[in-house]
Amino acid sequence: MTGLDAFGPEVHEEVARVRELVSRLHAELPRWELVVWTAGNVSQRLSTADLFVIKPSGVTYDELTPESMVVCDLDGTLVDGDRSPSSDTAAHAYVYRHMPEVNGVVHTHSTYATAWAARAEPVPCVLTMMADEFGGDIPIGPFALIGDDSIGRGIVETLRESRSPAVLMQNHGPFTIGKDAKAAVKAAVMVEEVARTVHISRQLGDPLPIPQEDVDRLYDRYQNVYGR
Amino acid sequence: MTGLDAFGPEVHEEVARVRELVSRLHAELPRWELVVWTAGNVSQRLSTADLFVIKPSGVTYDELTPESMVVCDLDGTLVDGDRSPSSDTAAHAYVYRHMPEVNGVVHTHSTYATAWAARAEPVPCVLTMMADEFGGDIPIGPFALIGDDSIGRGIVETLRESRSPAVLMQNHGPFTIGKDAKAAVKAAVMVEEVARTVHISRQLGDPLPIPQEDVDRLYDRYQNVYGR
Amino acid sequence: MTGLDAFGPEVHEEVARVRELVSRLHAELPRWELVVWTAGNVSQRLSTADLFVIKPSGVTYDELTPESMVVCDLDGTLVDGDRSPSSDTAAHAYVYRHMPEVNGVVHTHSTYATAWAARAEPVPCVLTMMADEFGGDIPIGPFALIGDDSIGRGIVETLRESRSPAVLMQNHGPFTIGKDAKAAVKAAVMVEEVARTVHISRQLGDPLPIPQEDVDRLYDRYQNVYGR
Amino acid sequence: MTGLDAFGPEVHEEVARVRELVSRLHAELPRWELVVWTAGNVSQRLSTADLFVIKPSGVTYDELTPESMVVCDLDGTLVDGDRSPSSDTAAHAYVYRHMPEVNGVVHTHSTYATAWAARAEPVPCVLTMMADEFGGDIPIGPFALIGDDSIGRGIVETLRESRSPAVLMQNHGPFTIGKDAKAAVKAAVMVEEVARTVHISRQLGDPLPIPQEDVDRLYDRYQNVYGR
Repeated sequence: MTGLDAFGPEVHEEVARVRELVSRLHAELPRWELVVWTAGNVSQRLSTADLFVIKPSGVTYDELTPESMVVCDLDGTLVDGDRSPSSDTAAHAYVYRHMPEVNGVVHTHSTYATAWAARAEPVPCVLTMMADEFGGDIPIGPFALIGDDSIGRGIVETLRESRSPAVLMQNHGPFTIGKDAKAAVKAAVMVEEVARTVHISRQLGDPLPIPQEDVDRLYDRYQNVYGR
Repeated sequence: MTGLDAFGPEVHEEVARVRELVSRLHAELPRWELVVWTAGNVSQRLSTADLFVIKPSGVTYDELTPESMVVCDLDGTLVDGDRSPSSDTAAHAYVYRHMPEVNGVVHTHSTYATAWAARAEPVPCVLTMMADEFGGDIPIGPFALIGDDSIGRGIVETLRESRSPAVLMQNHGPFTIGKDAKAAVKAAVMVEEVARTVHISRQLGDPLPIPQEDVDRLYDRYQNVYGR
Repeated sequence: MTGLDAFGPEVHEEVARVRELVSRLHAELPRWELVVWTAGNVSQRLSTADLFVIKPSGVTYDELTPESMVVCDLDGTLVDGDRSPSSDTAAHAYVYRHMPEVNGVVHTHSTYATAWAARAEPVPCVLTMMADEFGGDIPIGPFALIGDDSIGRGIVETLRESRSPAVLMQNHGPFTIGKDAKAAVKAAVMVEEVARTVHISRQLGDPLPIPQEDVDRLYDRYQNVYGR
Repeated sequence: MTGLDAFGPEVHEEVARVRELVSRLHAELPRWELVVWTAGNVSQRLSTADLFVIKPSGVTYDELTPESMVVCDLDGTLVDGDRSPSSDTAAHAYVYRHMPEVNGVVHTHSTYATAWAARAEPVPCVLTMMADEFGGDIPIGPFALIGDDSIGRGIVETLRESRSPAVLMQNHGPFTIGKDAKAAVKAAVMVEEVARTVHISRQLGDPLPIPQEDVDRLYDRYQNVYGR
């Protein structure tokens, strides 16, 4: 028996499809060097039920299969799967409960993004690709302990006041969101890339800021005209 | 129907050959860690018609095939292909219109080159391999927004006053040129390598300059005597 | 004849199993970029005899096989195997003699951990993942020459006063311990990761400390509640 | 016809064996990230004739085969092979003519070693693995232009006054030597590793020096007692 017995065939079908997708997207994290060992997790919300698929806890990237992915409800309670959900499940669930437009969440400890997070310093928007993808600075979220809703609340409160799909949680690391898991993975890849490039630029002097109106034009074009 | 119907068999043959070549050269960008996700693009101008082959927009490196490459005319208008051309197509087209000796263009956001670009600081010529390949400093191009000819014009105006086949567009990233796409890819690999090495050298002090006459001797030898 | 003739079948069986395990775990060291050439070694103590399995000396990672692993007693004397044990065997043996709860030891010269070791500067606990895994700062061990018990003694004396499973031996590099070789390998991967992230954070300013009571809560949860 | 016709069968046999070896060792250069594109070269002197085998010029690492390797005499003149010898052949030849105990030479532009070379600053001996492998600081050679014996003479004069098998040629990059090509490749890997680790250590403060008598003890043990 599984908690999925209460759901119809279209949910079972979507669970199978999203397990496959989320399992495959986890391979992007080591590929782009965003994680070591078992750190980092990807989830996607279903469109057919108030459920999401997420990585199980403590499983290495080599061992991940569609079958090992677990299904949780929006309180983060395990509904289907042989293993415990990721220890970050409560944060993913909180985001899904409070941001209905978000259907994908990713968390990593990627090095350069986490380095900015440890100083609680936003990444300034000094690259055209940052303007395109993030629409401005990448913001810092509060210091929050795992174990209750603090991390989820910190993510949601920070992202609601920003165009950025990425937040750097202080002393912790980046969380990213998207319309689906693939978009959130792309944001996780891009946040590390721009955190790294701006870090390196700052090592030898001050990068030139991009005027806000140009940031706005680039962001609008990339998100709208360019069809993203 | 395709816009290629108006062209003869030698053009069709070259299109097939250059699609294969440009597709294969794109694999060099992730291989040398010059790009993440779908960023970066390579193009080559045909010798049999006023056309060039370039990467389609938003396609990941795993999905690139010769068939997915697109063909544009020198105004950057799509002539053949199932997808939209790269959003940087207008810049490539401008270069081909204004630099007849250039038959290959590459654009990336490679990390160290982009870090210098964000400070609008040329990479000083302090390595013999820079003298060989670039003949001096690697210059900075103007800040320019995507959407009209500004980027292309900035590339051409900067490169015309330099021996360097690479320009670092301010707050944006490197563009490189060559007699063919392979030469432009090599320049893209080398600009990141020297941007990285000089950055690292500068972190702990001032690299020693190479006297201009020695730069000139090294450049002449590498480009002429050595047969490049 | 081999020194294993004096031991019963359960020891022979465990030796075969641990040779396979230790050989396989060595592949994690180049995979996570902790070693170059032949540097770095992993060992695991047997549960059925006062013996441990360790890498042979001077063998490259491509050539490692279960059969090439060597078996030593707790004085570090070769008991079984065709090659000399790693030159770090005496340090592993000392740890096993003096820390009965430790059954796995790893040594590398991983870059960022060794960089902190060369300055004899502990890595400060400014990341939640450091609090989870290390329970505080990563401590520095004394400068010690190879050839007698100095290195082993330095490791044991430092780790006894810390919750960290990793010690950075001054001017030398990290040693890590665990309940088995896999746990010690994980600690070797994590010590490099946090040494690197904190280094990068410190390059542009001062990372924010995590209050000791929060470090304690995170450590307790990760080690106990979370079931590690 | 080839210049090898004048030599006996034992030379032909050794040429075949060393071509295979030198071709295979070139793969270590990209593997350890010491080179990009076609930069970097490995050579080994024959024991049966005053000849050495070296990489051809301008060939990428994917295209290297035993057959593409070329054979030169100790003046650097091509004796056998279908392509031009590496443009660094004169420097290799000079080393073989003046250092009879050296049978392997490697040249790269590896990033961190070249970064120290651009500042003309020796890498200080602050790591036990440096004491083991290099016996002290890694020295700087003079600025020298390609085209005559200047580079070879700079290498030989610098290495004669040092225990180090590696020299960092100013504004250029490292050259390493060894009793055979494999030993020189190992030195090329290790020089980059220690140049990188000491660079990173120095970024946040001053690494602690190792007393000269301890450097001497470590070097003697590693080179003699330990059996290298």
